[in-house]
Amino acid sequence: MTVNSRPARPARPVILGQNQYGKAENRVVKITRDGATHHIKDLNVSVSLSGDMDEVHYSGSNANVLPTDTTKNTVYAFAKEHGIESAEQFGIHLARHFVTSQEPIRTARIRIEEYAWERIEASDAETGHSFVRKGQEVRLTQITYDGSSWEVISGLKDLVVMNSTDSEFWGYAKDKYTTLKEAYDRILATEVSGRWRFNWTDDEQRVPDWETSYEQTKKHMLQAFAETYSLSLQQTLYQMGARIIDNRGEIDEVRFSLPNKHHFLVDLEPFGLKNDNEVYFAADRPYGLIEATVLRDGCEARIPVDLTNL
Amino acid sequence: MTVNSRPARPARPVILGQNQYGKAENRVVKITRDGATHHIKDLNVSVSLSGDMDEVHYSGSNANVLPTDTTKNTVYAFAKEHGIESAEQFGIHLARHFVTSQEPIRTARIRIEEYAWERIEASDAETGHSFVRKGQEVRLTQITYDGSSWEVISGLKDLVVMNSTDSEFWGYAKDKYTTLKEAYDRILATEVSGRWRFNWTDDEQRVPDWETSYEQTKKHMLQAFAETYSLSLQQTLYQMGARIIDNRGEIDEVRFSLPNKHHFLVDLEPFGLKNDNEVYFAADRPYGLIEATVLRDGCEARIPVDLTNL
Amino acid sequence: MTVNSRPARPARPVILGQNQYGKAENRVVKITRDGATHHIKDLNVSVSLSGDMDEVHYSGSNANVLPTDTTKNTVYAFAKEHGIESAEQFGIHLARHFVTSQEPIRTARIRIEEYAWERIEASDAETGHSFVRKGQEVRLTQITYDGSSWEVISGLKDLVVMNSTDSEFWGYAKDKYTTLKEAYDRILATEVSGRWRFNWTDDEQRVPDWETSYEQTKKHMLQAFAETYSLSLQQTLYQMGARIIDNRGEIDEVRFSLPNKHHFLVDLEPFGLKNDNEVYFAADRPYGLIEATVLRDGCEARIPVDLTNL
Amino acid sequence: MTVNSRPARPARPVILGQNQYGKAENRVVKITRDGATHHIKDLNVSVSLSGDMDEVHYSGSNANVLPTDTTKNTVYAFAKEHGIESAEQFGIHLARHFVTSQEPIRTARIRIEEYAWERIEASDAETGHSFVRKGQEVRLTQITYDGSSWEVISGLKDLVVMNSTDSEFWGYAKDKYTTLKEAYDRILATEVSGRWRFNWTDDEQRVPDWETSYEQTKKHMLQAFAETYSLSLQQTLYQMGARIIDNRGEIDEVRFSLPNKHHFLVDLEPFGLKNDNEVYFAADRPYGLIEATVLRDGCEARIPVDLTNL
Repeated sequence: MTVNSRPARPARPVILGQNQYGKAENRVVKITRDGATHHIKDLNVSVSLSGDMDEVHYSGSNANVLPTDTTKNTVYAFAKEHGIESAEQFGIHLARHFVTSQEPIRTARIRIEEYAWERIEASDAETGHSFVRKGQEVRLTQITYDGSSWEVISGLKDLVVMNSTDSEFWGYAKDKYTTLKEAYDRILATEVSGRWRFNWTDDEQRVPDWETSYEQTKKHMLQAFAETYSLSLQQTLYQMGARIIDNRGEIDEVRFSLPNKHHFLVDLEPFGLKNDNEVYFAADRPYGLIEATVLRDGCEARIPVDLTNL
Repeated sequence: MTVNSRPARPARPVILGQNQYGKAENRVVKITRDGATHHIKDLNVSVSLSGDMDEVHYSGSNANVLPTDTTKNTVYAFAKEHGIESAEQFGIHLARHFVTSQEPIRTARIRIEEYAWERIEASDAETGHSFVRKGQEVRLTQITYDGSSWEVISGLKDLVVMNSTDSEFWGYAKDKYTTLKEAYDRILATEVSGRWRFNWTDDEQRVPDWETSYEQTKKHMLQAFAETYSLSLQQTLYQMGARIIDNRGEIDEVRFSLPNKHHFLVDLEPFGLKNDNEVYFAADRPYGLIEATVLRDGCEARIPVDLTNL
Repeated sequence: MTVNSRPARPARPVILGQNQYGKAENRVVKITRDGATHHIKDLNVSVSLSGDMDEVHYSGSNANVLPTDTTKNTVYAFAKEHGIESAEQFGIHLARHFVTSQEPIRTARIRIEEYAWERIEASDAETGHSFVRKGQEVRLTQITYDGSSWEVISGLKDLVVMNSTDSEFWGYAKDKYTTLKEAYDRILATEVSGRWRFNWTDDEQRVPDWETSYEQTKKHMLQAFAETYSLSLQQTLYQMGARIIDNRGEIDEVRFSLPNKHHFLVDLEPFGLKNDNEVYFAADRPYGLIEATVLRDGCEARIPVDLTNL
Repeated sequence: MTVNSRPARPARPVILGQNQYGKAENRVVKITRDGATHHIKDLNVSVSLSGDMDEVHYSGSNANVLPTDTTKNTVYAFAKEHGIESAEQFGIHLARHFVTSQEPIRTARIRIEEYAWERIEASDAETGHSFVRKGQEVRLTQITYDGSSWEVISGLKDLVVMNSTDSEFWGYAKDKYTTLKEAYDRILATEVSGRWRFNWTDDEQRVPDWETSYEQTKKHMLQAFAETYSLSLQQTLYQMGARIIDNRGEIDEVRFSLPNKHHFLVDLEPFGLKNDNEVYFAADRPYGLIEATVLRDGCEARIPVDLTNL
């Protein structure tokens, strides 16, 4: 086996393209004690840095490489130094630090998952330090900073919703492979994966209230899902996005990836039974997958097309 | 390749032991309509049957085998015929049916996972058909019927809880491989997997109220977790079980499998920072695993020792 | 909130049943260097100890509790002190240590998952330190020692196999919920989860050759699957077990849990096409689940009935 | 609750952006019989279509929407009509069909996962229909067609590799959060997720040999991993990509996402033992994550930056 010397770059028609590196999935839990009443922030933080990194790829010289281990340490130190007011605010502290403190680093992208907890109601109603994980959606944010402007995209995943009626599907295009029967009353269910981009980019004195924004955005999205009489999942998706744009001035762009979690009405006639929209088989695969971006008029789309990898 | 004829049993020192078969993971969703207000039951039902099944193993004769496809059909048909009052009641209907309707089947075991949903609060507060999956624990039940008596074991899994204080660990045994430092204030977190066995076995006129029993059992378990000042996870586990036995007369036995989800205090001293029980690393593996049964005095243990496979 | 004092055991009709504790999923990788040729053992080791542990449950006294952290340290130290000849041999070292070195510990159960690696074939065929994970089945073993005798149960999981013909299913029992059509040529596919119990219990001078035993047992099992013309998955399962008992004198008992991974022939007639056993839909859920024990005549069954938790 | 009428688009400052829809994860297994010797293709096919789809989002009119159920049917029908020579060729058939047969559909993207099988060696070496799933990497391809040119990106995921020596890490940048010690002999392990883009775009008479290309590309990638004496994972990544560009003229661009699967040397000194690069703890999270594109000089980068979602 050959120990490689420096690759003979001049002789080789190969170049390096976009690259980034960092420590992924740093699990940090921060407890804030307000007397006997504790508060939790429970995050999964992934750091991704890019900049002047050609040499480490070409020759293995690490002179410009701040170790991923150091980025991990920074996450934990910053949880102490800056606290965790919100995932967004925490990500902003981290991104600014990496870009401004290390000359070769030009861009930092911080991705955070947040897990929500609620208090356990004790028998004498006094517990301030006992929690049960809420377990519903995972809250997401991604902060990108290039030294001059910010991009903040927040969102959620794993939020499963269902309308047991007020959904139809008919009047569609047909070809020789079409066998589907039209549906005038069906279950509409999906597992929401959504991202929304804030229009805030630089004014550090006027940052949005990230916690309120998240709660209200989720509320509007759920209400739009519930209140839309649906002729297609695309129509419901658009209403969910439009409702957010209409109500949240801090958000210019929303993207959803919505699997159509099919609930098939079971044919009970062979058993002499009538299934009047009562008994359904919840299928796994395949599933419809509906994806779209909804924008404030005049704004540019910047959220990547793929929120999932399939 | 040889097409096998009947295995020459007499010549072979091999016999068949315990066996069972059925259709696993039948996903059934039942919508009940009370005017515009709908109700959901969302179950994952696994059927396992045993009895006079030697021939199918020895010779491949299926004469005694009700197809697993038929057991699937029965799950869906029964959702219509009997409704789904509770997972327990639904399992009882199914188990009785298989044992009493097919002579070769002597025992039926029905295992059910249940996923909880809550209503989406719409803007004008009138939605009766829009739901979001609660996403916290998965509720479990297992019904076993042998033609004469019933065994009902219910429980839950995936319920993550945390006490951010009121937990210590010290005074333990030491040997030459012990390096752990004693802890006088630590996070105690676990993901509860629990099962509880009802003492009801046969009187069909006096079955427990399964829904109330579940809600109350979960409540007592959570309160015991929250209210126990813990010197070890074993002590907390015992209190959780004992609280259930104390308060729920219909339950004689409880078993828990509690992973100790370690939250390690991060050493911030290298960065000149003091970590006063504020910043933790939530570790994945390895984890402590504490498992025990708690019994009503005089009762026999019947819940299997292994709730998980590791 | 009440800090609990010792539970008033005499006044409480609650007792402790079976209990065990330890550190689960210790991921240990051992590199052995034979000059430039390296060898890997890659294990996931779970330790479970039981014995005189009432006090820690009742009062929180840890006097009899060797910390789970210590059991973790022991796993790593033993990898150095004893090496890892085989998962079975390593588990025997660990189990003996815990039972013989700590008076309160009466029984130790060591469970191990093993992941196989194979060498990367380099361009000049000399690499001795480069590996790719094989990725097929996960090898398993469970060692239990109570101070006098040993129980060794080995096995595997996640091994997916398929016969594309030589499988039929007909002549089964029917009831009013039966709609399945008989099949005279179908795909038979399953994901094998198997366990086999060795009859070795104590003679430390005559332990089986664990590595050879595993390779041969897997080979016989696969050949029995391939060579059985199957009238039911039960019949195939029995042949797989019987072949092992017939050929491996060190094994007295085998248990399999075999999901019937349904491959449904797709109906292409609506598109004017004939599907002559060519195009299949590989379904996820539900699935048939066939489970049985096969024993050497005269031997007792000791492998637990449930290899999975559904 | 309000049944929504058409959203009042003129009055609303909201517009639709990029959108796509289709049926994801169609599991198709194709058996080809060459006498008693069978061949398997085992695919997971996801269809994603886009084009003139504004109306279905704005008003719910499905007139331009070919149902996702139809796209599923097409996958199965095409497996019969065209066979599955390779995942790439199958995806090309599908993409061309959707774009050329439905006027509103302008672009089709087909993503395919492929699972490899190998033959079970029977005792008399004649089995032609018995297979065991290989279980190593998942092969990937993505075909995109817009009516004029093709983009083919293939790749793989879940391929775990390890060098047990010939890896160092030192000479890196340091800041106040740096505590990492330099390493002069460490394990280098990763789980490869890679994609490579073919330069073929339109000449239907000169398509690459997809099967050979995949086998050779994987081989070169593994050899580059094995044969690179590594000063950083970035350097290894670059060598893996460059080796492919050097050797496979049909490929112009490669992107890798390589988690640094840390194997930490366990400190055995507290137990009086020396760990001479023998015993490692295989950690889960956090992990370094190294991502980069390697290009043929003069070519444009088109593979998306994110191969995973964290």
